[in-house]
Amino acid sequence: MSAPLRFSAFVMNTTSHILHGAWRLPEAQQTRFNSLDHWVELAKTLERGKFDYIFFADVVGLYDDYQGSWRKFVESGLQIPSNDPTVLASALAYNTEHLGIVLTNSILQSHPFDFARKISTLDHASNGRIGWNIVTSLSGNAWRNFGFDEITAHDERYRWADEYVDVVYKLWEGSWDDGALIQDKASGLHGDFDKVHKINHDGKRYRVEGPHLVAPSPQRTPVLFQAGSSAAGRRFAARNAEGQFIVSPNPAAAKALIDDTRRLVAENGRAPEDLQFFQGLSFVIGSTEEEAKRKAAELDEVLDPNTIIAHAAGGLGHDLGHYDLDTPIGDIETEGTRSTLAWLHEAVPDREPTVRDLARLRSHHGRIVGTPEQIADRLAVWRDAGIDGVNVTNATIPGSFTEFIDHVLPVLRDRGLARTEYAEGTARRKATGRDLLPDSHPAATYRGAFTDS
Amino acid sequence: MSAPLRFSAFVMNTTSHILHGAWRLPEAQQTRFNSLDHWVELAKTLERGKFDYIFFADVVGLYDDYQGSWRKFVESGLQIPSNDPTVLASALAYNTEHLGIVLTNSILQSHPFDFARKISTLDHASNGRIGWNIVTSLSGNAWRNFGFDEITAHDERYRWADEYVDVVYKLWEGSWDDGALIQDKASGLHGDFDKVHKINHDGKRYRVEGPHLVAPSPQRTPVLFQAGSSAAGRRFAARNAEGQFIVSPNPAAAKALIDDTRRLVAENGRAPEDLQFFQGLSFVIGSTEEEAKRKAAELDEVLDPNTIIAHAAGGLGHDLGHYDLDTPIGDIETEGTRSTLAWLHEAVPDREPTVRDLARLRSHHGRIVGTPEQIADRLAVWRDAGIDGVNVTNATIPGSFTEFIDHVLPVLRDRGLARTEYAEGTARRKATGRDLLPDSHPAATYRGAFTDS
Repeated sequence: MSAPLRFSAFVMNTTSHILHGAWRLPEAQQTRFNSLDHWVELAKTLERGKFDYIFFADVVGLYDDYQGSWRKFVESGLQIPSNDPTVLASALAYNTEHLGIVLTNSILQSHPFDFARKISTLDHASNGRIGWNIVTSLSGNAWRNFGFDEITAHDERYRWADEYVDVVYKLWEGSWDDGALIQDKASGLHGDFDKVHKINHDGKRYRVEGPHLVAPSPQRTPVLFQAGSSAAGRRFAARNAEGQFIVSPNPAAAKALIDDTRRLVAENGRAPEDLQFFQGLSFVIGSTEEEAKRKAAELDEVLDPNTIIAHAAGGLGHDLGHYDLDTPIGDIETEGTRSTLAWLHEAVPDREPTVRDLARLRSHHGRIVGTPEQIADRLAVWRDAGIDGVNVTNATIPGSFTEFIDHVLPVLRDRGLARTEYAEGTARRKATGRDLLPDSHPAATYRGAFTDS
Repeated sequence: MSAPLRFSAFVMNTTSHILHGAWRLPEAQQTRFNSLDHWVELAKTLERGKFDYIFFADVVGLYDDYQGSWRKFVESGLQIPSNDPTVLASALAYNTEHLGIVLTNSILQSHPFDFARKISTLDHASNGRIGWNIVTSLSGNAWRNFGFDEITAHDERYRWADEYVDVVYKLWEGSWDDGALIQDKASGLHGDFDKVHKINHDGKRYRVEGPHLVAPSPQRTPVLFQAGSSAAGRRFAARNAEGQFIVSPNPAAAKALIDDTRRLVAENGRAPEDLQFFQGLSFVIGSTEEEAKRKAAELDEVLDPNTIIAHAAGGLGHDLGHYDLDTPIGDIETEGTRSTLAWLHEAVPDREPTVRDLARLRSHHGRIVGTPEQIADRLAVWRDAGIDGVNVTNATIPGSFTEFIDHVLPVLRDRGLARTEYAEGTARRKATGRDLLPDSHPAATYRGAFTDS
């Protein structure tokens, strides 16, 4: 329980990712997302702070309409434009040595044969520092961008994801044996044919012959992340993920979720600690408590409740844009939104919560305001609840990260809450001491499974 | 006719691209293809030489079996492993300022919505230096990697390509009007909703709602290349391409092909010069003719005729591996191979050509051996035949390029056959004086075509 926390920078290749409106702050530079310099500078900053990961969220479509339209998304920069993160990774890898690069990629957006090849190429290019955040897309527009009439049902999406990861595991772990790449100039033998295998996958959605076109990269399979909190999502994470991104309302809730999920991990035959939990938190930092509170008030000043609601509604399947911000949530609840909004009643127990309360909670949720010492006190409580790391949500880029690095991390290091140096090696080795997935992981079953070439 | 030639470095993210066996030369470093440093160093070298493009060929599957198996490909490193080129581009862009980066991407491998987004992201990241070599995949294994039983018929592939480019043109040219991205911190207005449009593409293979998720990049549509020489391929190039990669056996044949294709370009309502031709050539350079000839002999020593035949057979649809190298071609010809092998009879008119002649011709084809001055003489003849540029095929990386840059380009510059400086601006501006496609290009028809948001 006394291991240092790990730190991940939660970003998206867009202007307005989560704390909508914060891009208007004078110091905010996230409007520069089109610039490669912007991202390379951030990666170098994070490596200076010895962050473990830069974690790119992503979407491949708009959220569901708000006030009957997608106008709000364009006008407020709510994840549109949103650029592809994967194609930035090699520039970030070239300019850093240790930083892990976690890329979100939906099973919807790319064929597993092509995706596996891109990731393997990047894992070589980065000397083994690539992670993959496995997602199934949530918005109808995303599905309609890829030829579907509507969102594939939730459980069916996870069956699809099961097959998708099966294909890429076969390519990454089973298609090439160790030692297959020879490159001997004297004999002219470049590869050992008996160590390279077609996978001949034949499933419900995919048929893939193989072989994988890329020789084994340092990690073979990238470090696997997942964020789903539904039953199917947690089952998937328990089987596959090495890192889970959680947004628990408080340390006690995190502890319950972690304990419960780790039981599922064990039921899958994996070691419970093979799944690490990263809690999403944002920080408002002051040299005094008063300064921190003043900065938090300044942030609240620019945060836009309507945009925050538009984003939240995207996950509810109900257009909250038709209601005034002061509408009681009780007047809105439908069968589809009831369970999702239950936590709002918990958070505002003393009166009937409103739409505005939802916006406030979404933006304050996971926010820690205080001096570096106060923040360290709070992070110690989170660590004791069992989280392995923090996914640092930003209000401004690079400000949220530079302030955290310059003011909070030194205090955390003094208290043993943060590492003082990077470990050597691949992203997985830094996290677990191993370059490759352990034998208990389902991907490992494909090692040596394809003996005919 | 007296414009300087343009130069492109023809490479692939693999060990053995075209001159199979050359990787065994002591100075050859192409076995380092897994290394990002290798590619960044090459890009910097090419920029030092003021090359216009680094042109990445690519495949997404093995060639057809040779001697009844794919053993030969693995053993000789014939385009396996082959890594993805697209994900390298941002590192190359970050480390250069002028070099154009041309990426081959098959219509088979990625969905046009995802592909368009990756390319737009890279065109932003490179300040407008991305090109796309449009291909339809040729090997059965590639199709079986993507779920098909067999190769889609040739003409149907081009109909598919027609729809594919239609989708990406709509996203690149029609989805966002100029001035849609506002990013005004004072007002909080990030984008002009009335200038962003869904495309609602509904075609035979794709349905794509849109909008494009990326705001217009410097070139919007990347510089478009094509290499097909079939009737359907030439029709496609005449309609769409801005650069065509050709491998003509001699300047006269190039002139005939260029004149004929430019007629087709004009028939499509485009200016004939809007399609530029890059001839594939390789160079063996000596300070004396004798030294050049000796180096050519050393190269021939390591070139492997069987691997070259295995590669050639991949385009013939007939397994030439079942024949001895001295088998007369006349004993092999089938309906499928006859037309393709006709040029071999032309090239070896005095006797019955053999399989070995095919290998020799494939590796000598487009090879110029001599002193820098002799090479310049030959390039002047090629230029007078109407080519706009040379796609420099390598025997070794980086040697083939450093020798060309250090010894041949200075002579070419003295004679006005090569530029002395880069022009400013995007890749398209360097090539044509414009950042965007001209109005006569079919992609331009989608500008302003989607007026409802």
